[in-house]
Amino acid sequence: MIRWNEETEQTQQALLTRPAVIASKAVETSVLQIIEEVKAQGDQALLKYAELFDKRSNPRLVVPLQEINDSAEQLTPELKSAIEQAYSNIKTFHQAQLPQDMKIATAPGVECELKYQAIDAIGLYVPGGSAPLPSSVLMQGVCAQLSGARTVVLATPVNGDSLISPAILYAAKLCGITTIIESGGAGAIAAMAIGTPSVPKVNKIFGPGNSYVTMAKQLLSQTQTGFAIDMPAGPSEVLIIADERANPEFIAADLLSQAEHGADSQVILLSNSAQIITQTQQALNKQLKALSRTEIAQRAMENSALIQVDSLQQAFEISAQYGPEHLILQIADATPYLPMVQNAGSVFVGDYTPESAGDYASGTNHVLPTYGYSKVYSSLNLLDFFRTYTVQSITPQGLKSLSSAILPLAQAEGLDAHANAVSVRLEAMKND
Amino acid sequence: MIRWNEETEQTQQALLTRPAVIASKAVETSVLQIIEEVKAQGDQALLKYAELFDKRSNPRLVVPLQEINDSAEQLTPELKSAIEQAYSNIKTFHQAQLPQDMKIATAPGVECELKYQAIDAIGLYVPGGSAPLPSSVLMQGVCAQLSGARTVVLATPVNGDSLISPAILYAAKLCGITTIIESGGAGAIAAMAIGTPSVPKVNKIFGPGNSYVTMAKQLLSQTQTGFAIDMPAGPSEVLIIADERANPEFIAADLLSQAEHGADSQVILLSNSAQIITQTQQALNKQLKALSRTEIAQRAMENSALIQVDSLQQAFEISAQYGPEHLILQIADATPYLPMVQNAGSVFVGDYTPESAGDYASGTNHVLPTYGYSKVYSSLNLLDFFRTYTVQSITPQGLKSLSSAILPLAQAEGLDAHANAVSVRLEAMKND
Repeated sequence: MIRWNEETEQTQQALLTRPAVIASKAVETSVLQIIEEVKAQGDQALLKYAELFDKRSNPRLVVPLQEINDSAEQLTPELKSAIEQAYSNIKTFHQAQLPQDMKIATAPGVECELKYQAIDAIGLYVPGGSAPLPSSVLMQGVCAQLSGARTVVLATPVNGDSLISPAILYAAKLCGITTIIESGGAGAIAAMAIGTPSVPKVNKIFGPGNSYVTMAKQLLSQTQTGFAIDMPAGPSEVLIIADERANPEFIAADLLSQAEHGADSQVILLSNSAQIITQTQQALNKQLKALSRTEIAQRAMENSALIQVDSLQQAFEISAQYGPEHLILQIADATPYLPMVQNAGSVFVGDYTPESAGDYASGTNHVLPTYGYSKVYSSLNLLDFFRTYTVQSITPQGLKSLSSAILPLAQAEGLDAHANAVSVRLEAMKND
Repeated sequence: MIRWNEETEQTQQALLTRPAVIASKAVETSVLQIIEEVKAQGDQALLKYAELFDKRSNPRLVVPLQEINDSAEQLTPELKSAIEQAYSNIKTFHQAQLPQDMKIATAPGVECELKYQAIDAIGLYVPGGSAPLPSSVLMQGVCAQLSGARTVVLATPVNGDSLISPAILYAAKLCGITTIIESGGAGAIAAMAIGTPSVPKVNKIFGPGNSYVTMAKQLLSQTQTGFAIDMPAGPSEVLIIADERANPEFIAADLLSQAEHGADSQVILLSNSAQIITQTQQALNKQLKALSRTEIAQRAMENSALIQVDSLQQAFEISAQYGPEHLILQIADATPYLPMVQNAGSVFVGDYTPESAGDYASGTNHVLPTYGYSKVYSSLNLLDFFRTYTVQSITPQGLKSLSSAILPLAQAEGLDAHANAVSVRLEAMKND
């Protein structure tokens, strides 16, 4: 057990330092080559990667609409209803975020508007792997649907000769997605950013992925004009603050539900009670054995720390310094502490609010800034699917009164033509 | 004169293609070295650059508070009042953008919140050059002030042994900025991103700059965790749509007020009237001669195009394809066309709404996405100074009802520990 106040500042820093994520030069080289191939060969490149990387013997790119429409039939009633319940809660929470245009007269005769417009074409990426991720479809797809984007493309790899998961298709169907591409990795990202005969070109790509996906998103966002990505990617992480009356079984279960995401996940427990830390350690040992991903979770736990703090206030200070993706508060009454929350992606308040509730079904978005980026990036929200622009309408009298600001400023900045654009109009008004 | 419909698709594409902006490898190498020097030497590196690049014989870094407070005394009454008027209008427009937290029950016992928090520490950059840019201070500074950010740093270079401009200081004073650093270029950007004894470390840097500044922002945003920048940078541009009754003098003045920004500025006129185009060309020739920056404006005009279109509707389609930073509508009644506006950063409606009004004083922000990025990035707005995060609070009954979504989804995704975090709680409820 670590006692925060007994550690040197250096050790404290080290405890909050995330393992370095170093993008290998080899990944960059491969991804650059993939981007060039997709540019040159379009769909043919994607089909080649599906054979090469996904081991498909007879790859196809576009999922027929019929398959999307019929997907519900392939699901158990429990899973179908779970997807619907999650969809409904996520939609409720994000619908309340629909932005409203704003119009204001900043001065007589000077009307200014801030307007929101859905980004025209959106690409969603859902990684493959050992199991399908319908929750990832829902978290991105609900936002795309609510934004009213004109084009929405979903890309996801399919392993070997299995069929695309009906859970993915049904989640997409609820979100109104009709263009699903069976393609993954850097190739799929490049195809959506550049466009191919089968894959519509998009303006912004959302979604998690492996190091190739992340590298492709990063490189393309730096080189393709009019193209952007959601946020920087990093390993998942949780920080739990627990008081002396918290339930060690709950704490252990929450730590492990983060740890099972990957060996690079980081989990931190801060408690003002040594007993809670000892009991959590015991509960961890017991629960770990019962998991299917024991080894992954165990390796993640090695990057992790259970730390005794002097007070809950100190715990919140450490949390603000760390900037966790997920912050779980298992304390008797969190209310007085909520104003101290800083730099967290999503906060889970109370003993009965596990992280997995937000991962799937509370309604909040599970796409969150990691790796300290919660200090400056937002949890995914509906505005990420919009762009704002301004509109101004000025009457002749309005311009006349603004001219006492514009002319001296243009002069001070040495911009004659800026002043002249006002002067020619003032001149014309005199002649009217 | 170019007639759109008579050109091949290839020429049409070429007309809307911006000149390539190629960051030179030499700039990247210099900037990487500057970043390393600032890391290693802190303030000493900045003082060295002030001597080397800004030709200061006795450089200082921090502007004394007294100098900021006394700045108004150095201004003419006209300029002082112009800065105040612009400040007031910009503040009015941006204050109306202050975000409101949102709380909603997505299901019984499941309360979800979307909360806004000011990004903790903000860096603002204002370039130097031949004249001071107080408007750039106001556009960034008003937002930082309204956000309530805990730390706001402004960095700007000072040329030779002149004093820092009182117009800059007074604009900063109105925005409540007390930390002003006399340092410019990549060094100033690196110092704000990394922190030095004199320069507070910030989470996000805003503001325009030369290729070194842009490169430093880009490189640091890729490598510093918890650090971000405002938006990608590119040369400034305007697209004007004018009908047959528009005033060619006004059009020419607006085209030139964009062109004088720099030789790489791009200006485009689309009109359904050949006569308007001819008369605008004549007005341009006349007005160009009277400018102080004739050569810059003339070179910018060479990248530019006056294009005759078949209809105003076609003009709006071309504009959406181009995605202009500034879109000026000199048409009799713009109302029916406004819903056709797409991918513009800021729109100027009517004969008496020149771009320079928005550059200085209408109240809208003049920091806008350029180079086609208006397809996916927003005009600078108050939310760029905030991050959002979510909070959820779930009652035991709420969790019980969510479990019918969480458990099947966790199972489908192969995430045992996610399910277990719910099961241990359902178990505990039974025993209560």
